[in-house]
Amino acid sequence: MKITVSESDLVNAINTVYRAVPSKTTMNILKCILIDAAGQKITFIANDMELGIQTSIEGTIEEKGIVAVDADILSGIVRKLPDGDVLIETTDKSQVRIKCGSAKFEIGCNDGLEFTRLPEIEKNEGINVSEFTFREIINRTIFSISDNDSNKLMTGELLEIKDGNMRIVGLDGHRIAIRRTELNGSYSDRSVVIPGKTLGEVAKILPGDMDKQVSIFFTNKQVLFEFDETLVVSRLIDGEYFRIDQMLSDDYETKMTVNRQELQSCIDRALLLVREGDKKPVVFSVTPANVEIMISTDLGRMDENIVCNSEGREIMIGFNPKFLLDALRAIDDEEIDMYFVNPKAPCFIRNTEQTYNYVVLPVNFTTV
Amino acid sequence: MKITVSESDLVNAINTVYRAVPSKTTMNILKCILIDAAGQKITFIANDMELGIQTSIEGTIEEKGIVAVDADILSGIVRKLPDGDVLIETTDKSQVRIKCGSAKFEIGCNDGLEFTRLPEIEKNEGINVSEFTFREIINRTIFSISDNDSNKLMTGELLEIKDGNMRIVGLDGHRIAIRRTELNGSYSDRSVVIPGKTLGEVAKILPGDMDKQVSIFFTNKQVLFEFDETLVVSRLIDGEYFRIDQMLSDDYETKMTVNRQELQSCIDRALLLVREGDKKPVVFSVTPANVEIMISTDLGRMDENIVCNSEGREIMIGFNPKFLLDALRAIDDEEIDMYFVNPKAPCFIRNTEQTYNYVVLPVNFTTV
Repeated sequence: MKITVSESDLVNAINTVYRAVPSKTTMNILKCILIDAAGQKITFIANDMELGIQTSIEGTIEEKGIVAVDADILSGIVRKLPDGDVLIETTDKSQVRIKCGSAKFEIGCNDGLEFTRLPEIEKNEGINVSEFTFREIINRTIFSISDNDSNKLMTGELLEIKDGNMRIVGLDGHRIAIRRTELNGSYSDRSVVIPGKTLGEVAKILPGDMDKQVSIFFTNKQVLFEFDETLVVSRLIDGEYFRIDQMLSDDYETKMTVNRQELQSCIDRALLLVREGDKKPVVFSVTPANVEIMISTDLGRMDENIVCNSEGREIMIGFNPKFLLDALRAIDDEEIDMYFVNPKAPCFIRNTEQTYNYVVLPVNFTTV
Repeated sequence: MKITVSESDLVNAINTVYRAVPSKTTMNILKCILIDAAGQKITFIANDMELGIQTSIEGTIEEKGIVAVDADILSGIVRKLPDGDVLIETTDKSQVRIKCGSAKFEIGCNDGLEFTRLPEIEKNEGINVSEFTFREIINRTIFSISDNDSNKLMTGELLEIKDGNMRIVGLDGHRIAIRRTELNGSYSDRSVVIPGKTLGEVAKILPGDMDKQVSIFFTNKQVLFEFDETLVVSRLIDGEYFRIDQMLSDDYETKMTVNRQELQSCIDRALLLVREGDKKPVVFSVTPANVEIMISTDLGRMDENIVCNSEGREIMIGFNPKFLLDALRAIDDEEIDMYFVNPKAPCFIRNTEQTYNYVVLPVNFTTV
């Protein structure tokens, strides 16, 4: 193999696929990035067997071939090369030479044929959504999933197509984050649960262009994301997801409208008194024109009054401040509506169109 | 105690003294910041018994008093307060209230009288140097000291006043970093060894103003830095420092002039092939118009040619790439001069005025 590519294309391609390189594995070949210059384009692939990423760039192929190179070394080298054209060539079966300007590296490599490529996914009934929107709805829900493997479904997000809408849902048993976006075009209803890690990596490598689309294809076991010159393939999580709609309700006893940034800063301050692992709640006392926010922990007490506009019954209710803060940070609106039923029932932060709905379960509190 | 201060002054004062709060201690009072409003000004002090920092701000003192407050909690709270005036008052012997805007905190506190204040240092024969210069000469030498306590003197830096110059020296047995600056005014010769931690913290809190001076005072056991409204007191390291001047020499066999940035980027790349803990040298082969830089490790090989201008004998010499890189990063000059004697003798990177002199010991190498 002997190819010449631009340094910046090479860096982009390697940064993209690098996210599928496992950080820990005993299998050396999985620690590699495959460089495939056997066809017209130059393709890079990494695959940890659950998540695989492939991307292609243009370049000059003087001698066709494929080779697998240790991802850490390759990525380290290309990021520090001077600008300009990079020549990559195999010097023998186990050695690859990388030249750029006056710098010349020789590093070990593996036989490209040993590398496991991405599984073929049939491109049927693809769903198209703008790169920007898809990245946003992932980033604004994914913090709600669980990092605890004991319930596998909670470590993923539901991606649901229904009535021409795409909905993404993440939950961990204490809160739910839901984002909905209308799709252009008609699609048949379906739903899958995608590993959180996959969605997190997709959100990181998606360029986030408003005008460009990501296409999503499913099989029973796998999902494929296709955008620009990149393919991401991941297994799905088996099992039936939680019945979200049964947990949502439009009924409420108290509706409070409040400045999001003020509430967010206040809860951020309340968190100062919460030690890691401490479960002390922040308590809201909602009255018509004012919400008093209180916390009392071993470290001290805080209380603060914020102007609000509330209708319905007055209520006192306690929350895990971190969960509230996560939800508030995921919202851009200047004013938000919070809906309460009673101190034991979930609180909803949603807009009228319900393009977002953050559900936070309350916690018990003793009056401060 | 009852005082009102501006939020930004308070944040600055606490950030300044916070650097003397020990991260680990079993003595609760050492984890505190003393707020002293017994006099005209409001003074903040932290003291880990080796290093103490004190700073004062203006404010309204409604009720005089002193109180010691947990540094972590205090610092966390003030950094997240809204802008505006902050009221701090003791509500009883063990509680202090902090109010700003609509936010109100109540946290525990300790008796201010239990707090150990800074030792009094007699202000005799102070040395004045610009804040900017002093910060620079610390930052550009301190990386050379040792973090290993087995030789206490190597964990500090020599501060030497001689013939109207101030010289700061750091060394760890493998390299030496020296910076010299001319002082305004005449001072008697003397030298002390200051703990690296102290100098590091001073460099961090020094505003670095060109036009402002830091004054430095010594006793046999202690050093005092005074700038703006801030005092830093630290113990000195006992013992006689290494005889630096015996290690320095103006003789050389080879002098190489090279573009610093090019050399630095090249060695940065060479380091990619060096695993943590690996001791593989980078090898220079200096010829009249060209220096070839090579490294060979388990991960691979690199070689690169850089244009240089050298006089004297051709030489091959090996170095720990990290030590060379540290020295190059501490220099601003576009072109640097490197002086070699033989492959076993130290290499000097210095300018003609010798305001800087970086000495790096070579290491053995086998030809690549």
